[in-house]
Amino acid sequence: MHIKKQRLLTPGPTPLYPPALHAMMASDLHHRTEDFRKIYKSALADLKEVMGTSHDVVPLVSSGTGAMEASVSNLFSKGDHVVVCSAGKFGERWAGITKAHGLQVTLLEEPYGSAVKPAAVAAALQANPDVKGVFVQASESSTGAAHDVKSMGEIVGKTDAILVMDAITGLGTMPLDIDGWGLDVVIGGSQKAFMIPPGIAFLSVSPKAWKMAETSDLPHYYFDLTKEAKNAAAGESSWTPATSLILALAEALRYIKSIGMDKLVDNAQLLARATRAAAQALGLELFAPDSPGAALTAIKAPAGMDSGKIVKGFKERFGAIIANGQGSMKGRIFRIAHLGYFDFNDLFSVIAALEVILVANGHEVKFGTGVAAVQEVYAEAAGVRLPVTA
Amino acid sequence: MHIKKQRLLTPGPTPLYPPALHAMMASDLHHRTEDFRKIYKSALADLKEVMGTSHDVVPLVSSGTGAMEASVSNLFSKGDHVVVCSAGKFGERWAGITKAHGLQVTLLEEPYGSAVKPAAVAAALQANPDVKGVFVQASESSTGAAHDVKSMGEIVGKTDAILVMDAITGLGTMPLDIDGWGLDVVIGGSQKAFMIPPGIAFLSVSPKAWKMAETSDLPHYYFDLTKEAKNAAAGESSWTPATSLILALAEALRYIKSIGMDKLVDNAQLLARATRAAAQALGLELFAPDSPGAALTAIKAPAGMDSGKIVKGFKERFGAIIANGQGSMKGRIFRIAHLGYFDFNDLFSVIAALEVILVANGHEVKFGTGVAAVQEVYAEAAGVRLPVTA
Repeated sequence: MHIKKQRLLTPGPTPLYPPALHAMMASDLHHRTEDFRKIYKSALADLKEVMGTSHDVVPLVSSGTGAMEASVSNLFSKGDHVVVCSAGKFGERWAGITKAHGLQVTLLEEPYGSAVKPAAVAAALQANPDVKGVFVQASESSTGAAHDVKSMGEIVGKTDAILVMDAITGLGTMPLDIDGWGLDVVIGGSQKAFMIPPGIAFLSVSPKAWKMAETSDLPHYYFDLTKEAKNAAAGESSWTPATSLILALAEALRYIKSIGMDKLVDNAQLLARATRAAAQALGLELFAPDSPGAALTAIKAPAGMDSGKIVKGFKERFGAIIANGQGSMKGRIFRIAHLGYFDFNDLFSVIAALEVILVANGHEVKFGTGVAAVQEVYAEAAGVRLPVTA
Repeated sequence: MHIKKQRLLTPGPTPLYPPALHAMMASDLHHRTEDFRKIYKSALADLKEVMGTSHDVVPLVSSGTGAMEASVSNLFSKGDHVVVCSAGKFGERWAGITKAHGLQVTLLEEPYGSAVKPAAVAAALQANPDVKGVFVQASESSTGAAHDVKSMGEIVGKTDAILVMDAITGLGTMPLDIDGWGLDVVIGGSQKAFMIPPGIAFLSVSPKAWKMAETSDLPHYYFDLTKEAKNAAAGESSWTPATSLILALAEALRYIKSIGMDKLVDNAQLLARATRAAAQALGLELFAPDSPGAALTAIKAPAGMDSGKIVKGFKERFGAIIANGQGSMKGRIFRIAHLGYFDFNDLFSVIAALEVILVANGHEVKFGTGVAAVQEVYAEAAGVRLPVTA
């Protein structure tokens, strides 16, 4: 155990796709040149293609939170009434952003680990016909729970309101038919299933959402979606673009297109299923058993064990960074990521390491039990005949 | 299984140490400058330090085979009588090189998977007092077997002959007291435990070996050890050096020094032990059970299964490159590497993948069995109390 490779196994930043990392070395270029315009336009076209939408896709130099704020400050007006679905730290972020901009917020709150039900959204819209927007997380990264955004899209689509969706860990981990399901604003970030470092966010904007931008009166300057969309169409950016990250994104998108966005989603869902099977085999409790997402799986630490010990065990014993719980969940859960550039070999070693860490902290498990559960999910999916002794 | 990360798991080239890879990006420098001289001298000083010798260490721009040939063409003379120990493909290479240069070769041959005994070397030297050199592999990469080079050093040290040792996969995987054991020439390569790409080889040369260089009459020009050693002392190289690889080597040596060369050796030995335990737990037979080295472990494919199926399974199912047998061993054995930048997490996933591949090819094993054997070796070494159920 003298060599411990640094392994980044969190739900964002996620493991980097090496050719994308290497592509960043070609950053000695200027962004106001025809050469860069070609790269930029082509990357944005690929991004739109993998998102599978006819809507405009607007790139921003920011983290995902910047794109969340941009959706509020560009599409809404002072005092607008909105519904915020919140079942975790990122739901709370929607509440924070909308309130910071003086919107009137009706909060549909569920405890961490649960999800807001589409029926609750329908009821809120019926009771409040003045609502202009509904905010939700496709995948709540603090708990691993996924929302039923298809149903929410149908419900919101029947009203004048728009559905604004943080899909930062949702894109690439769950099917999202942006146009078909009426998902008006869909927000993504570079450091998630897109396999590159943080620094770029993007959002798709439906015609219905653009309509609202026309009358929006909230102050904004840097995050100007209308201006940015117009520039992007010409291969330009309103401000200096993050060229190294665009080069990385272009490379990662080529890879994602080569395997297929649907297969990227399948991959995350299969690894999520295997992770849940391993947790069960090890006698561990899932934190969001009723609405599990595929970006990450939050697992409760065994009774009496601080989840920080598990996180520390990964770091100190194996050089790997996994995620603790966030906010009030810190110390209670740990989060195993499987979005983007993760494969079965990653999961084999994560679960084997977890078993060792559990034992080292006094939680009895039989070595290999969780790994065997992962192997069985692989074998079933790959059509490998299971050993009769398994 | 849609994402399969490309994993290089062979005994050379080995997995790259990422900061060393990234350091290569600083190659826009000229080698005849004070800046580069500083880097070169410092890297060579670090190399000598981790090799733990007072002998000159001479770097070459070549693969390991180049350094093997250099040791012959620089130190010996036409018709010299030498002893070649051969128990695998690389032993055969010593025979090929010495014969190509017109030396008179006494071959001490053992079957693949075995090792030449020091007693055989002693007997050959006693029977042939005219022998000028003994050639051996510290670690025979084609079989995973290690030679008892300490005993050989003592035996050869009592004669006028020199011991010339291919330690290309030996350095960093076994203790080697170059000065103390009388190892006259010790050859290494960049792409092994040194964690960087191929292209640099190096050899330590004892005063006794240098003495032979003075009278050597074999033709050589590019591989001129005397000239290269003199230049290296001044931070210069006889010909253009591989600057990107020197930058990488400098970075990798910083890392190796930070953990300690003895710990790098421990790491390989511990992983080798865990690999043997896993093979045993899975009912697989080791190919070199009597003299196992720590660079790699060669394992026999189950009866009736071509080892190529295992190699292909790693590639097709998991994107990983492992080594088949070489030469006559192709199809019979596969080789799991653990030299250089390998850790327990690598081994967890290699063994889990191996279990799946064995089952997919009809060899019944209980999932998790081999992984548990690896976990037990980790637990024992790390002082983790084993679960009573294990």
